Amino acid sequence: MIYTADWIVTQDAARTVVRDGAILVRGDSVAAVGAASDVVAANPGEQTVSLGESAVFPGLVDAHCHLPMSLLRGRGDDKPLFAWLNEDVFPREAKLFPEAVRLGAALSCCELARYGCTSFFDMYMLEENVFAAADEVGLRGVLGENVTRFFPQLGGADRDALFGRIRRNAEAWRGHPRLRPAVAPHAPYTTDPELLRECRDLALELACPFAMHLAETEDETRTTLDEHGMRPVRYCDSLELLRPDATFFHCVHLDAEEIALLAERGCAVVHNPASNLKLASGSAPVAEMIRSGVRVALGTDGPASNNSQNMVRELWLAALLGKATARDPAAMSAQNALDMATLGGAAALHDPSIGSLEPGKKADFFAIDLGSAPNAHPCANPVSALVYAASGAENRLTVVGGREIWRDGEFLTVDWAELRERFDRVAARS
Amino acid sequence: MIYTADWIVTQDAARTVVRDGAILVRGDSVAAVGAASDVVAANPGEQTVSLGESAVFPGLVDAHCHLPMSLLRGRGDDKPLFAWLNEDVFPREAKLFPEAVRLGAALSCCELARYGCTSFFDMYMLEENVFAAADEVGLRGVLGENVTRFFPQLGGADRDALFGRIRRNAEAWRGHPRLRPAVAPHAPYTTDPELLRECRDLALELACPFAMHLAETEDETRTTLDEHGMRPVRYCDSLELLRPDATFFHCVHLDAEEIALLAERGCAVVHNPASNLKLASGSAPVAEMIRSGVRVALGTDGPASNNSQNMVRELWLAALLGKATARDPAAMSAQNALDMATLGGAAALHDPSIGSLEPGKKADFFAIDLGSAPNAHPCANPVSALVYAASGAENRLTVVGGREIWRDGEFLTVDWAELRERFDRVAARS
Repeated sequence: MIYTADWIVTQDAARTVVRDGAILVRGDSVAAVGAASDVVAANPGEQTVSLGESAVFPGLVDAHCHLPMSLLRGRGDDKPLFAWLNEDVFPREAKLFPEAVRLGAALSCCELARYGCTSFFDMYMLEENVFAAADEVGLRGVLGENVTRFFPQLGGADRDALFGRIRRNAEAWRGHPRLRPAVAPHAPYTTDPELLRECRDLALELACPFAMHLAETEDETRTTLDEHGMRPVRYCDSLELLRPDATFFHCVHLDAEEIALLAERGCAVVHNPASNLKLASGSAPVAEMIRSGVRVALGTDGPASNNSQNMVRELWLAALLGKATARDPAAMSAQNALDMATLGGAAALHDPSIGSLEPGKKADFFAIDLGSAPNAHPCANPVSALVYAASGAENRLTVVGGREIWRDGEFLTVDWAELRERFDRVAARS
Repeated sequence: MIYTADWIVTQDAARTVVRDGAILVRGDSVAAVGAASDVVAANPGEQTVSLGESAVFPGLVDAHCHLPMSLLRGRGDDKPLFAWLNEDVFPREAKLFPEAVRLGAALSCCELARYGCTSFFDMYMLEENVFAAADEVGLRGVLGENVTRFFPQLGGADRDALFGRIRRNAEAWRGHPRLRPAVAPHAPYTTDPELLRECRDLALELACPFAMHLAETEDETRTTLDEHGMRPVRYCDSLELLRPDATFFHCVHLDAEEIALLAERGCAVVHNPASNLKLASGSAPVAEMIRSGVRVALGTDGPASNNSQNMVRELWLAALLGKATARDPAAMSAQNALDMATLGGAAALHDPSIGSLEPGKKADFFAIDLGSAPNAHPCANPVSALVYAASGAENRLTVVGGREIWRDGEFLTVDWAELRERFDRVAARS
């Protein structure tokens, strides 16, 4: 299959943008990218879809999310992190059941795909249901069962039961072409050193990524200093958690030494600007991290603290907030933001097969329609148009591993009306 | 005409939200708002449009914009204010011609309407062309010719010619049901005390609002202190510009005394979060201003520094940034943000006939479709759904003064395809 479009933004090493370009898809991968005339001429008889006045980008990566929390969207707005967690989130989550987790995740997968996101890093509970939902909708993802020291928890009555669930899920989904497990302890303040070491060992045993919320709030810094005599990142380093297979979510409150440590150890960090602003947690030193060599990705965090999972608006916010935080409008460009959401996302998912449109990479992409929306005119530069001017709703096609998930107003892998009805019924009980 | 919808968010004094509600429109005004069953029963035979699973809100007010600057969208991203103005904006603006101004403004009016905005406060040059564009598309607005001390300028070869243009426009559009003139000097640093006093006198003579950029950057504070020995707001007060008919754009850098002055004098202030972040100008003390009694509205600023004029995403950003700036997630709620963009907008446009849906007010409103977009589920509260979860593209109907401007994917007052083609041609030359 060949897709042609006015612009192809490849995100290759040279950040090549092809005018009047085409992508040749073979199986689940990109076989060629180049001028439309060349690609079409070199592949006679190949079926061609013209996306016309569109700009095609590598699929966006939502590198930190809690997909089932769409069930809690709009509950407990305008509260600080701990009040929101204790009053609105935890009491509702205690009543969760598998079908709710699955439907919440399925709706969220549709939301991701609708706005051009093709991959995600999820952390939640009863994660086998998120695997099932993502499998059904057709997205790519890394999925970690949430682990805390408080038992019984939804994922298991005790540590052994919980780890058993993680092992079972890893076994059940081994070899899946798009879905991989992770081991995901919740945060330093909801775990203890022994549990964190056990989680790290389990990740090594299962050969899968390790991920955790880290350095999200000033409270967390204070607590970690009080309890362990170290700031959060240094504490993690003392437990040998800072490894290249590790991904840390948030990292808002870091000192220079911690930034250097994250870079030196090769960890990935996921920036969540909307959630950090909405909970008034602070504003991560993203430009500084990137300058220091930290691999930074972008995420929406859960829909209960965002409240959308529209990665295009997250791109916009990341660019704007990066400038404001660094007090320098040049500190975070549209290109920097797109890099975070594509190549940075690949780093955070520990998946080198995504993040750019090049031969051999997975055929994960989306297409912003530049013809219909007034805000898409004029388009001097498709990266600027995507990051600064688009709402995300201009997306007319989402492809994951060569398979069309969303096209011209329709979800192609699920019956949206039926899913929505089932979701609304479950959400009303949540 | 009766419009029914699942939710009507009235923005009346009690912030009433009507479930299964209706709006009765007579002429250009709201005649009744209430339960759909009551409104329909009381008006037998009235034509009814069912908006079904939608939430209807008073039209958003973009209280600070430069509509024709859609021509410059995406030019000079990622630069500080003065470099961007001098390298990208001013050289291009020097080549502007009336047809370009008109087409730029017309495209922007479509963009505003597309995302639920019904009224605006514009400041630009050759403003008669913006009047014509807004008249054609059918929006409501206050329009001010930009005034600086640098002659010749696009609006006039000298002060008399420029003021002549302002008087002619005021005369030409006197009595228009939707469009009103303003007198709009650019900023303290591009004017002088005499010119500002003359502008104020002209506004008094024409009985129209006075508006100016104010306290946007730290540079401006320094310059005003150097040249006039006073901070910007105090300087304006010394010239007797702080009056209830005045609207000041930005007001990012204020001390406590300046906030108190703006409140005491009854001025309106327009917050432009996206532009302030993008240019790294800073973050306005909005929660503090509101607490102090300043009437605060919301604006997009020009599409060259935003780069969209989607007031729904501006609502989201205003809520998020308000929390972050105050370091308190409760400091700026979704309701506060909506208040800024509706009732605050009415204050900034000095137009008490808009800002809420109540009998006697203008029939300006829009309708967010809660049925189709995954991010609209579940909807616990339509104000939260609009501010935190919507992209703006869910809007399916924009009505201004009882007239439908946008409905279900179509612009009804202009031929979009033709406008777009003419705009793109002119933009390519700009």
